[in-house]
Amino acid sequence: MDELYDIMRRRRTTRKYRETPVDQELIQRVIQAGIYAPSGSNKSPYLVAVVQNPDLKQRIREEAERVERRFYQEKRRAKESEFLKWVETKDIRVTKSFLTDAPVLLAVFENSEWEDRHSIESTWLTIAYMILAAENEGLSTVTYTPEPKDFLNEILDIPSIYRPQVILPLGYALEKRNKEGRRPEIEERVRYYR
Amino acid sequence: MDELYDIMRRRRTTRKYRETPVDQELIQRVIQAGIYAPSGSNKSPYLVAVVQNPDLKQRIREEAERVERRFYQEKRRAKESEFLKWVETKDIRVTKSFLTDAPVLLAVFENSEWEDRHSIESTWLTIAYMILAAENEGLSTVTYTPEPKDFLNEILDIPSIYRPQVILPLGYALEKRNKEGRRPEIEERVRYYR
Repeated sequence: MDELYDIMRRRRTTRKYRETPVDQELIQRVIQAGIYAPSGSNKSPYLVAVVQNPDLKQRIREEAERVERRFYQEKRRAKESEFLKWVETKDIRVTKSFLTDAPVLLAVFENSEWEDRHSIESTWLTIAYMILAAENEGLSTVTYTPEPKDFLNEILDIPSIYRPQVILPLGYALEKRNKEGRRPEIEERVRYYR
Repeated sequence: MDELYDIMRRRRTTRKYRETPVDQELIQRVIQAGIYAPSGSNKSPYLVAVVQNPDLKQRIREEAERVERRFYQEKRRAKESEFLKWVETKDIRVTKSFLTDAPVLLAVFENSEWEDRHSIESTWLTIAYMILAAENEGLSTVTYTPEPKDFLNEILDIPSIYRPQVILPLGYALEKRNKEGRRPEIEERVRYYR
């Protein structure tokens, strides 16, 4: 009964991966879990690209690093010092080695054909299910959202009606942080109407 | 190890609830689970309104039914017959009795102050965590998304920087459907790049 909460609590955002390959069966289970998620009008309005090809991972990394560099340049120009400070404390770098280190990348696209049935929201429910399934299989991931993301359509030859939402690397964490991520107290996020 | 997948698979979208009250402790556990979800820059960019007051539930129901009626009128005007047929097969009605029958409504808002840190996406990860936690606690829910939703700000006196995303009723299902919701085969939603 508490297993679900244990999975939720022990998950850690992971940016460093071992080379150890991931069994195809585990990848399938993670995606199958995503398909269990509810969706608007039951459309399951998403597409998952499973990228294991090293050349494609390399190209994705190069493009991601290019948009990241531009993103931080804009943040600096806009003097968003609070954001830049946060980035520093988290040791987040423009270099996205996890995109080539992780043996698998799941690039998750929303099918915008069903936009009026909440396709983005539904896709993020599916992403949450996959994040939890990865943890359940002993794998780690990071919810990586470069801006913009449309280079993924080009590299993976996926029509633009599918809009990229996230890259979830899948692999075994090089080391697991003990410390939980900062979370608010429940009372900071709740209002009661009794 | 398969418990997570069992929770995911046995969940059913539920529109009919018993009057049986829900323990405050269970509500807290569901929300706490939502707070475990990862979020962009760790902002936890959401607010959960826990509505148990019968008058407020009644007002929410009335406003929801009003926007629903308008929504379907527009669909009919636009001759969206495929959508209207789907609605019929699911026995979805403009009458939203679950908004007053369920003992608790969780109205979940996104904090748009953090929009550039993916506050909508993060909030939907939190919603997925809460949906799974509800099932884990023996409760049922439905991912209810009236359009527009801003009547919730007014009724609950919540500033407009918080944008409503969903109403999750919480309660005990009157009956649990055996049949699983329609889902695609995994191969219909996956592309491999080896």
